[in-house]
Amino acid sequence: MRKVSVIGIGCTQFGKQNGVGIVDLAVQACGEALSDARVPRGCIDAFYLGNFVSETLAHQGSLAPIVAHRLGLGPIPCTKVEGACASSGIAFRHGVLLIASGLCDIVLVAGVEKMTSAETGAVTEALASAGDADSEMRLGLTFPGTFGIVMRRHMHQYGTTREQVAMVSVKNRSNGSANPRAHFQKCVTMGEILESRLICDPLRLYDCTPISDGAAAAVLCAADLASALTGRPVDVIGSGHATGPATLFEMADLTTFEASVAAGQQAYREAGVAPSDIDVAEVHDCFTIAEIAAIEDLGFVKKGKGGTAIADGLTALDGRLPTNPSGGLLSKGHPVGATGLAQIYEIVLQLRGEAVNQVKGAEIGLAHNLGGTGAVSTVHILRRR
Amino acid sequence: MRKVSVIGIGCTQFGKQNGVGIVDLAVQACGEALSDARVPRGCIDAFYLGNFVSETLAHQGSLAPIVAHRLGLGPIPCTKVEGACASSGIAFRHGVLLIASGLCDIVLVAGVEKMTSAETGAVTEALASAGDADSEMRLGLTFPGTFGIVMRRHMHQYGTTREQVAMVSVKNRSNGSANPRAHFQKCVTMGEILESRLICDPLRLYDCTPISDGAAAAVLCAADLASALTGRPVDVIGSGHATGPATLFEMADLTTFEASVAAGQQAYREAGVAPSDIDVAEVHDCFTIAEIAAIEDLGFVKKGKGGTAIADGLTALDGRLPTNPSGGLLSKGHPVGATGLAQIYEIVLQLRGEAVNQVKGAEIGLAHNLGGTGAVSTVHILRRR
Repeated sequence: MRKVSVIGIGCTQFGKQNGVGIVDLAVQACGEALSDARVPRGCIDAFYLGNFVSETLAHQGSLAPIVAHRLGLGPIPCTKVEGACASSGIAFRHGVLLIASGLCDIVLVAGVEKMTSAETGAVTEALASAGDADSEMRLGLTFPGTFGIVMRRHMHQYGTTREQVAMVSVKNRSNGSANPRAHFQKCVTMGEILESRLICDPLRLYDCTPISDGAAAAVLCAADLASALTGRPVDVIGSGHATGPATLFEMADLTTFEASVAAGQQAYREAGVAPSDIDVAEVHDCFTIAEIAAIEDLGFVKKGKGGTAIADGLTALDGRLPTNPSGGLLSKGHPVGATGLAQIYEIVLQLRGEAVNQVKGAEIGLAHNLGGTGAVSTVHILRRR
Repeated sequence: MRKVSVIGIGCTQFGKQNGVGIVDLAVQACGEALSDARVPRGCIDAFYLGNFVSETLAHQGSLAPIVAHRLGLGPIPCTKVEGACASSGIAFRHGVLLIASGLCDIVLVAGVEKMTSAETGAVTEALASAGDADSEMRLGLTFPGTFGIVMRRHMHQYGTTREQVAMVSVKNRSNGSANPRAHFQKCVTMGEILESRLICDPLRLYDCTPISDGAAAAVLCAADLASALTGRPVDVIGSGHATGPATLFEMADLTTFEASVAAGQQAYREAGVAPSDIDVAEVHDCFTIAEIAAIEDLGFVKKGKGGTAIADGLTALDGRLPTNPSGGLLSKGHPVGATGLAQIYEIVLQLRGEAVNQVKGAEIGLAHNLGGTGAVSTVHILRRR
């Protein structure tokens, strides 16, 4: 297998973008990544686009060839991949696989979602399609309900406190306040979180990600060709992609997402590193409790210790493992199909030493993307050269 | 690159399937393919599922991991791929790529769509999302309109007659009358076609595919391992996947789908065969005129000669190149995401010598799948061992 590097990245502003369509968003992020990589469009061998519900919310299918055609990429193979909130983690992985296997030299990967122009009810229904329509979602469980149950169970099983969970939001909102591309760039206090509107007990408004528009992209290249193209390649040293149960009732433990555990183990094995080697991480904090589950599932702390670890500052910007320095989904926003690549965007910035909340001396970074009720997860580990 | 073989196939009944959900359909086709291949589920390394609009019409996203979990495939990577009507041609190609590159040994690929339980208006809107929402589809062009324009242009440019185009439907309906899995199993006469309800001038009802439910699947395996697993492997000798303009106004010639031409050339080159070497073909006849464009774009006849070739019996069951012996989309039905793999299903049956409209001595078969307004196409060439 060949080594693979990231040689270009792009990301739009996240948030409500009136008058900017889904194709425009993807084209913008891809254009930025291509400029950053300084490769001509004719050199791209394939294009992968992660997207969840463009047909439903933006009335646009065939999204990958349409975006590629607008970019002028020529007759290359173009594929949309879908794995709910993990869609663009999957897109990134396919770029890595095709280059690693020698099938391609340079691949453009992107993720996009346009959500704010649809009615709230339509967005809720579209998001619910990430769960199992034949069982839990049919019974009225939506994602705040799902993660509310996970949070309640975590508190019951491990003594995690309401305040510990809220600290995730305090931290990520504070990180996001420095991120010019974040949907929310404003700090929130513990008091504001605990007094914010109840969404689904025990989750409150500031425990939840917003509905956002946005796109992110990366140019991937065979590592042996990367040095000739850019002075600052970032190497992809581990890639994991795994499936788990898609319902709460099939989970062996309501606080553990098996797909995250399996994808993480796969990525660590391939990279030849341990969780303790990670210098900076972007994890899938679709709700505050999800970040706690993630740092446990990825082996940063033992199961059940996530709450105290966050309270002890492990994941703070000046902690041993700064987590979601971008602001995470909670602050940066969560345009579903774009999220996985926006995480990669942040990790690449960190490893280049160009991030706004720069982690000093970061050499190895991890991006963790989760889709549905834990149905699918991708984990990628990147290293500065 | 390693050689790849098909070692198992499955296909549901196509048509209106009341009370059978989208996940059930996919599970049924996959189960049949796995039984046919006689490989234990634990041997599957990855799963690709082609689907177009499950989120919109069946309220189910995360479809690949959900189907895989129901099948008991374990934590393997599962990915939905979307390319409108070419979705499962793309799924098949990804199985081929991952095995060819050595990343996997055995991959399950499937395609599915559940369309008949949604309201007609919702189906029309969902199908229209395969076109460009920012231009032609916003202006009210739907797919019968698109292919009506293509037909009008073909008649104008090449003198193709209304009767020649209708002969595609006479042939495919006749072929489908013998196919027990076809949506329509009834012949239609030239007179019935020409007098059927006008849909979008010059296209009439029997020029159009129906709205169907269905799923199809295949088990792919490294060719060097296939002989140990099955006595009748069929080898994949060429795979093409290409992108073209997604709108009529961007096409250089309204009768030529550039993506089909490019995907065909890629597949022929890889297979080392010419169009004249093909013994049987399944091509994307979403409308009668589309079959004429396809046999031209794939090089079976010169551009403009498709109408006369069909009138001369080239593509008949006893012709030099029997085309759509399954009945094609026109007769078999068109559950969008399942269509590409249903074509592969038929070609594998033909090369095994087990098809209902068996082409005697067929050694090399071709499957051609087209998505959107020519935005994407896949072409696969298979050979009997």
